[in-house]
Amino acid sequence: MYGAGDVRIEERPDPKIQQPTDAVVRVVLSCVCGSDLWPYKSMPAAGTGRPMGHEFLGMVEETGSDVSGIKAGDLVVAPFTYCDNTCDYCARGLHISCRRGGRYGFDGVDGGQGEAVRVPQADGTLVALPVSADSALLPSVLALSDVMGTGHHGAVTAGVGRGDSVLVIGDGAVGLCAVIAARRLGAEQVILMGRHKARTDLGREFGATDVVAERGEEGVARVRELAGGDGVSKVIEAVGTRQTLETALAAVDDGGTISRLGVPQYQEGPVGPSMIMRNITLTGGASPARAYIEELLPEVLNGALEPGRVFDQRFPLDEVPHAYQAMADRRALKALITL
Amino acid sequence: MYGAGDVRIEERPDPKIQQPTDAVVRVVLSCVCGSDLWPYKSMPAAGTGRPMGHEFLGMVEETGSDVSGIKAGDLVVAPFTYCDNTCDYCARGLHISCRRGGRYGFDGVDGGQGEAVRVPQADGTLVALPVSADSALLPSVLALSDVMGTGHHGAVTAGVGRGDSVLVIGDGAVGLCAVIAARRLGAEQVILMGRHKARTDLGREFGATDVVAERGEEGVARVRELAGGDGVSKVIEAVGTRQTLETALAAVDDGGTISRLGVPQYQEGPVGPSMIMRNITLTGGASPARAYIEELLPEVLNGALEPGRVFDQRFPLDEVPHAYQAMADRRALKALITL
Repeated sequence: MYGAGDVRIEERPDPKIQQPTDAVVRVVLSCVCGSDLWPYKSMPAAGTGRPMGHEFLGMVEETGSDVSGIKAGDLVVAPFTYCDNTCDYCARGLHISCRRGGRYGFDGVDGGQGEAVRVPQADGTLVALPVSADSALLPSVLALSDVMGTGHHGAVTAGVGRGDSVLVIGDGAVGLCAVIAARRLGAEQVILMGRHKARTDLGREFGATDVVAERGEEGVARVRELAGGDGVSKVIEAVGTRQTLETALAAVDDGGTISRLGVPQYQEGPVGPSMIMRNITLTGGASPARAYIEELLPEVLNGALEPGRVFDQRFPLDEVPHAYQAMADRRALKALITL
Repeated sequence: MYGAGDVRIEERPDPKIQQPTDAVVRVVLSCVCGSDLWPYKSMPAAGTGRPMGHEFLGMVEETGSDVSGIKAGDLVVAPFTYCDNTCDYCARGLHISCRRGGRYGFDGVDGGQGEAVRVPQADGTLVALPVSADSALLPSVLALSDVMGTGHHGAVTAGVGRGDSVLVIGDGAVGLCAVIAARRLGAEQVILMGRHKARTDLGREFGATDVVAERGEEGVARVRELAGGDGVSKVIEAVGTRQTLETALAAVDDGGTISRLGVPQYQEGPVGPSMIMRNITLTGGASPARAYIEELLPEVLNGALEPGRVFDQRFPLDEVPHAYQAMADRRALKALITL
């Protein structure tokens, strides 16, 4: 990406092992993330492009001398940040803050929207898959690299449990995965706030019990009515605007929890006296996706979880610019990149 | 209180039973709260005074026909809001949001800084004490009406547990009680941020392992150094200014929790992308003090907890205006009102 609206397909040097902890992975499936759309809308024009993409699965081509957990020929999935899976942050499940971790597309590491990626900390990062490279399950496995792990993080940090009434704000891929996660953790009522019918219909199939298309005060009133008057006990905020945070605060019951997953497009938020008098908790954050792969993978492999249904359009690698535009225009929910 | 700096002692009608769920309590001990200082500093002048005080302990004089749990002659302690202790909010420990609850000094209910109080929802609100009205333990019991229950709420909502490194911001009565609470819940390191030596010395006696007198960036650097470089896992913020919230955010480790107890003197806070990338949780709120009395009372009665040591000055009722001024000038940590 060279700037807002400017995504180009270019030749880059073949990735090679640089550190003994690296692996080179030949990408089989990748995708475009909702968070890629923020720079697609606002990145200043730059003389050098930035490699894009942080969700991929592929075949291991080569491993460094210190890599022992995976080998050439393994099909692997990568979480959206790399990590050693051994440091103290990883040990407590906060892989996103790994001491040796980092982001794809930065610091000389390739992006996932490409033919191959040098993956640092390969032993900690990559999870070998017991399926073949032509399995129909692969899109759902790929979802574990980000959107499903992120939706799950929202439900976990919100403390969703049996019988809860949960509001999910946002009908993007993360919001829809949060619906799956909330139901999986026992929520009785899952209200999905969104106005794109094809998406909210998929949300219903994922387990949403109610859909609210209204926004602002009207939307809040509808949510409160559906939840029995007092508001919901848990909110998963999967958009990231100031308005959706305000909606979350207005829709949550006293003593409730709001988990934020969308990257905030604001610096300041309304966290004054009302939040204190009502004992509202604000939690969530960037998902430690790696932490959740082992837990969720079996249910993806046995078909119980189908987060891959969020991929509603496929694009070959050389059409990635169209994939961005389709998602920016909301013609595509989430674009799968095939190689 | 008739306005900022204007506290008067006046005759008021004797409280009488108005509802069958009321009790009339003759006050034995009361006190001035740090939160009373906000109106003392800023309340607009008013033609009619507002009854003050929400922390008291006293002798039941009379009970309404529906009151069965307490009787005339019982010595009782009242939490700082009244509540029925039976509604769904109370049932989940959120007595501060009780459906039949309310605040002393409002809606025709007396304040605790007076000779007697009509207490609504007496059965739910008042806890009978197995001690006599001249017990030396009474100041520590009185602390359960607010400051100790509030400090405990901070430690509970922050999730303080064995081995934690906890920062308590503020050397007021709530901050000092939070030190007691954090140690009681197993914190290994409790860093107290405050610059009033007599108070921080008491904080050390309550179990603070370190005291940081510096503020701002310098204070944060010192806290991080004491906590081993990455910051503390839990912060209890017992002041309520924008600056102390910023200090909390800067001093907490990734994945950590900030519990706010002070009434925020700000409407907007810095809850943007950094909080999300670092998975910081913002929790806490007004304490459901009633919820904690039964849990903490035995340890107060056996002398294991001595929160009453925060009362460093005593004033008879007719000197309450001086008590306010002494606290506003920081000459008194917390003023006990005797009757």
